[in-house]
Amino acid sequence: MKEMREQIQKWLEEHREEGTVLLQRLVQSPSIAKNEAKAQAIIIEALSKMNVQVDVWEPDGKTLQENPYFYSPRDQFTGSPNVVGVLRGIGGGRSIILNGHIDVVPEGDHDQWSDDPYSGAIRDGKMYGRGVTDMKGGLVSYLLAIKAIQQLGIKLKGDVIFQSVIEEESGGAGTLSALLKGYRADAALITEPTNMRIFPKQQGSMWFRIFVKGRSAHGGTRYEGVSAVEKAMTVINDIRNLETKRNQRIDDPLYKNTPIPIPINIGVVSGGTWPSSVPDLVKIEGRMGVAPNEKIADAQNEMRQCLQQLTEVDSWFKEHPPILEWFGGQWLPGSIDLEHEWMNTLVYQYREAIGEEPVIEASPWGTDGGLITEVGKIPTIVFGPGVTEVAHYPDEYIKLDKMFQAAEIIACTLIQWCGVNDRK
Amino acid sequence: MKEMREQIQKWLEEHREEGTVLLQRLVQSPSIAKNEAKAQAIIIEALSKMNVQVDVWEPDGKTLQENPYFYSPRDQFTGSPNVVGVLRGIGGGRSIILNGHIDVVPEGDHDQWSDDPYSGAIRDGKMYGRGVTDMKGGLVSYLLAIKAIQQLGIKLKGDVIFQSVIEEESGGAGTLSALLKGYRADAALITEPTNMRIFPKQQGSMWFRIFVKGRSAHGGTRYEGVSAVEKAMTVINDIRNLETKRNQRIDDPLYKNTPIPIPINIGVVSGGTWPSSVPDLVKIEGRMGVAPNEKIADAQNEMRQCLQQLTEVDSWFKEHPPILEWFGGQWLPGSIDLEHEWMNTLVYQYREAIGEEPVIEASPWGTDGGLITEVGKIPTIVFGPGVTEVAHYPDEYIKLDKMFQAAEIIACTLIQWCGVNDRK
Repeated sequence: MKEMREQIQKWLEEHREEGTVLLQRLVQSPSIAKNEAKAQAIIIEALSKMNVQVDVWEPDGKTLQENPYFYSPRDQFTGSPNVVGVLRGIGGGRSIILNGHIDVVPEGDHDQWSDDPYSGAIRDGKMYGRGVTDMKGGLVSYLLAIKAIQQLGIKLKGDVIFQSVIEEESGGAGTLSALLKGYRADAALITEPTNMRIFPKQQGSMWFRIFVKGRSAHGGTRYEGVSAVEKAMTVINDIRNLETKRNQRIDDPLYKNTPIPIPINIGVVSGGTWPSSVPDLVKIEGRMGVAPNEKIADAQNEMRQCLQQLTEVDSWFKEHPPILEWFGGQWLPGSIDLEHEWMNTLVYQYREAIGEEPVIEASPWGTDGGLITEVGKIPTIVFGPGVTEVAHYPDEYIKLDKMFQAAEIIACTLIQWCGVNDRK
Repeated sequence: MKEMREQIQKWLEEHREEGTVLLQRLVQSPSIAKNEAKAQAIIIEALSKMNVQVDVWEPDGKTLQENPYFYSPRDQFTGSPNVVGVLRGIGGGRSIILNGHIDVVPEGDHDQWSDDPYSGAIRDGKMYGRGVTDMKGGLVSYLLAIKAIQQLGIKLKGDVIFQSVIEEESGGAGTLSALLKGYRADAALITEPTNMRIFPKQQGSMWFRIFVKGRSAHGGTRYEGVSAVEKAMTVINDIRNLETKRNQRIDDPLYKNTPIPIPINIGVVSGGTWPSSVPDLVKIEGRMGVAPNEKIADAQNEMRQCLQQLTEVDSWFKEHPPILEWFGGQWLPGSIDLEHEWMNTLVYQYREAIGEEPVIEASPWGTDGGLITEVGKIPTIVFGPGVTEVAHYPDEYIKLDKMFQAAEIIACTLIQWCGVNDRK
């Protein structure tokens, strides 16, 4: 193993520029939703230079819509392909899925970026651009690991299933499609931007919308009306209490450094139409976190009960109960036992490569890991070189050193997990 | 006087249909802002059948804009005339302005109206339509009073200055223009819809806008951000305390039946853009009441200080103080001494006509009365036959009996205030 690690390190040094250029080309292709094809073509080109079986298909909207786990703003995916590359093992070993998403969130206000948002500019060892950290750097670390193993003539026993999927940012339709197509393995890795932390548990999340009613009146006689803003403030305070209650239950040591493990975020408040009128309708939208071991339906029930209690203590709410809806994407939570063999493997390889214990935490956001865990029944870990804090923000960047470190850890992890024949 | 009253009552009975038809024609002309000309033409036609000097002019935007009391969403008034009709007295008496506005607020959602919003339909002694109560019924009660006096050969000593102005709903530019043109009198009446109550004091009001800042973060790690919604709730609670403090000061017996004499209404709250993000900006808009004897600048100062105190107790507000703006229309407060001769005259005539004491209160909303009081230095009373609760609402209506009662009271008031020669 030590010899293979040294060979991998040497290979990565020799191919540093190649890896950097590949990442740059990927970042310079703005792959927001519906525009993934060009970036996927770069992935396909990279895979074609390796000895992998390439599978490219456009997820089928009709089939997906019948699946209870399907969420997307769109119902068809023409022109938006998934790409899978399978490095067939020689047999008798454990398989692994290396999952990553090609789609990126919109770049937002260009004025907030120092460079063009898709520049791929490199300064002080960092590459800048939307998607470089979330998560094209993670995709490239997979490709480097696979190519290194291949070119070094290392023959893995188990299959390696590389996946570059669409729609992670929009609800997981790409990964769901890959699962429905039949891709399974003994373990899965997702190189979302974790700052090189290892997340054996991931928070789930979903979006809620609440309508709070009031009664209109002239602002000069506001006491004749009922302010939907005042009522909404009561609802928001109640939600804050619910959040406190839910988080007091969390005693998982993985969350010991997290101030609020499963937050409930109020993201949008909008109500009233006229300064001189008492507002009669307020809309609240937000994101509710789901604990790694929690069922989404149970979390939704708690929110429903929280609002229900308001109707029992306030006669206005009794007559005009708030209306609760769930909309948009849902990210399933996920978790793997800390003593799981897959966890031990990755942690060991991290330690060997870095020379320190990894930071092990629960992730504060959802990923496709929940789908892979719940639908695929595959133990999944999230671990990647990207910078958590800058994902989705202007001047998103990655530290290139970390990408190559991750590639080394992944390559050695593949060797340990999938197994190799004894080599001369 | 008694004989003249009986003649006036008889005249009004004989001209009931004429008055009803005039009101109907006025209501059926939708005179929302910029569309006043047709309704004003009906007013001019009615005036031309009386022996009054008619003055019609389009307020001059350029001149008005230089005036500190000018507020309007528009800066020119082409096609939107004011109409004044002066019934010249024979001399030696007190003059009076009979002020009313021709403009109406938009009808809103047609689905909420039982009839067409401008139907002028009559059922059970009520006429329906946008503007019938606020305040075309009030304008018609003036016209009936003037016509009755004229046709009965009653010669008033003082001048009667009838005014049908634009822009009352938009900030007072019509009344301001009439004042700048030079129209003055010893007293003024405004037949806004008071349910036949007499308002010697009127609340002023103005619109405020407050921007509250936060700091964005991902909803899954909301503790890394600062929620502008939470901060806005603090601001709103503080404003509520300010309202309580301001109202505790009010000991005017005229307000004894008013739950909140000078309310601060939160009308619009809008913040955040994404359910999964901590909101970093919230906008609050509302209406602040001004006490009859209060200066607008002093009320604005109190609001400013209220927000200033927040910066002293909360370090976030210290670094990111809320931004306060005043925008849109301002309605000056107004008040007249309860013992003023003008007040005594109207109260006396009310009592004589109705046989009961009038209800005397302070008005909960602003009118052009503040402008007439402050700019014109003219003692002003607000009193009219319209139904307060339905102004600005769907299915606005007026009780026709009240309009004719008001006409009788106004005619007799003119006789007492302006004076008459002894008649045979």
